[in-house]
Amino acid sequence: MVAGSGDDAAITAPRGASVISVDMAIEGVHFRRETAPPEAIGTKALAAALSDLAAMGAAAGEAYVQLGLPDDVSAAECLEIADGMARVARENGVEVLGGDLSRAPVLILAVTAVGHAPSPEALVRRSGARAGDVVCVTGRLGGAAAGLRLLESPELAEGLESAVADELRSRQLRPQPRLAAGRSLAHAGATAMIDISDGLVGDARHVAEASGVRLVIDAGATPIAAGVEAVAEAAGIETLQLAAAGGEDYELLVTLPEGALESAAEALAADGLPLSRLGQVETGERVAILGESGHEIDAEGFDHLSGRPNPARPS
Amino acid sequence: MVAGSGDDAAITAPRGASVISVDMAIEGVHFRRETAPPEAIGTKALAAALSDLAAMGAAAGEAYVQLGLPDDVSAAECLEIADGMARVARENGVEVLGGDLSRAPVLILAVTAVGHAPSPEALVRRSGARAGDVVCVTGRLGGAAAGLRLLESPELAEGLESAVADELRSRQLRPQPRLAAGRSLAHAGATAMIDISDGLVGDARHVAEASGVRLVIDAGATPIAAGVEAVAEAAGIETLQLAAAGGEDYELLVTLPEGALESAAEALAADGLPLSRLGQVETGERVAILGESGHEIDAEGFDHLSGRPNPARPS
Repeated sequence: MVAGSGDDAAITAPRGASVISVDMAIEGVHFRRETAPPEAIGTKALAAALSDLAAMGAAAGEAYVQLGLPDDVSAAECLEIADGMARVARENGVEVLGGDLSRAPVLILAVTAVGHAPSPEALVRRSGARAGDVVCVTGRLGGAAAGLRLLESPELAEGLESAVADELRSRQLRPQPRLAAGRSLAHAGATAMIDISDGLVGDARHVAEASGVRLVIDAGATPIAAGVEAVAEAAGIETLQLAAAGGEDYELLVTLPEGALESAAEALAADGLPLSRLGQVETGERVAILGESGHEIDAEGFDHLSGRPNPARPS
Repeated sequence: MVAGSGDDAAITAPRGASVISVDMAIEGVHFRRETAPPEAIGTKALAAALSDLAAMGAAAGEAYVQLGLPDDVSAAECLEIADGMARVARENGVEVLGGDLSRAPVLILAVTAVGHAPSPEALVRRSGARAGDVVCVTGRLGGAAAGLRLLESPELAEGLESAVADELRSRQLRPQPRLAAGRSLAHAGATAMIDISDGLVGDARHVAEASGVRLVIDAGATPIAAGVEAVAEAAGIETLQLAAAGGEDYELLVTLPEGALESAAEALAADGLPLSRLGQVETGERVAILGESGHEIDAEGFDHLSGRPNPARPS
């Protein structure tokens, strides 16, 4: 940073390549104040923007925040939002350089995150997956979607250990941008990468389309977060509806040459993060999800019929 | 640009210094759809963000747009918004590299604008005004505030030539970011600069505070846009309430060493833009507005009592 806020714009002196991501969180569309505490709203807005940088293999640099505040947000709540952002910024080595405040009819957070890399070639795009690559995912999936179910329907937590339920809610409210993992995967030779915000199936489709390839994913290989099966059972839905279509886990879906897999997994293991092999890249198009029998599940229909609770339509 | 949208984030390879500005326009707070056509809403949102870059003396580079769309915005209106942005981008040599769309309860436009300069030292901040500098402003003031009055109360235009009224409404709806002027002023040796978004008095105060100086401004030297006096008279207010407190003209308020004034004015004249000398920088603090008699007008009170129509509280 050269100059922070206080001027019309912030000044930086970047070297190499810059990566810019913009992300907007709108009350009633992306979150509800009934289920998300102010600190978590700030946390998630910044974390989601940083996750986009992670998915490029960039190092996080600066962030700019625009807050739209309705009259019924108190000064204390506003400070809690800022505290949530400040914590994420601190944990990820990000400087919040500027932004502005405005009145608004609902709570709005628009975040611009800037990342850096030594060169444009050091960054990983969605378009580089090649037939023969393996498809992998970091961490475990379904936690954010299961956490959302618990927030919307607290009775679903009845059979769960409270620590497990807390962890699931936390995956929904306070996602962790996988910045270190993104850089490790880029360094290990990732050919394509995306963060799982829409859901495994939807985001795999983005990679397949951008790369002009077919992604074949073994449903049984999906790493499931602890407690997700129990929540799915309590909610009367399939586990994969939370784990493969639920979204917002902010884990990284990555394609790698087979030979790069071992060193990539080792680099992530050093940070305590598993890397699971889900399938492979083939010539063709679309995403194929293979069920237990090895037959293809209709991923399109599965995705659309997932029954994922959509916070865009608050009940 | 290295890579545009389609990835999680856009990639650029900046050299020298980068300047980043974020700006949010919210329906009912910053604009009303009753008085601003969709194309103008897009135009103004991007122009306001670029104006911040102009005020730093930066060259405009890239922009990122986040649109929040309520259900009652039609696809045609959405395209008109995009057309307005595209026109401003084209006119100012800006590439719109990315962004996203979201549902929203009201129309929201959050713009991130990135500018460039050869080095951080080539940029002009608010904090460099020194005693002895002259205070100048580009263009003519009051047009945007008068235009807003005409949009809110069309009967005020009765005594005006229609071309003059159109120009005033256009100053409100489609401001011109002064990018070329900003670079010329920076090159000529500007010591401090700010764009007039809050109003001459308010923005002069920002410079005085950031620079730790006193700005003395001769009210009679304020360059007034054509038609502003007539609108003020029809509305029963003082012309200076529109020209000095009205805001949104997006002209540049600049401080310069006395010796730099002539070359600065010549550079702007080449682009057809006047540079008016308003007063000087002195040691001290605050902004002093001098009236006809040479006595100080209470600028603080004048500003607060300006009677400026506030779009934040739609009637």
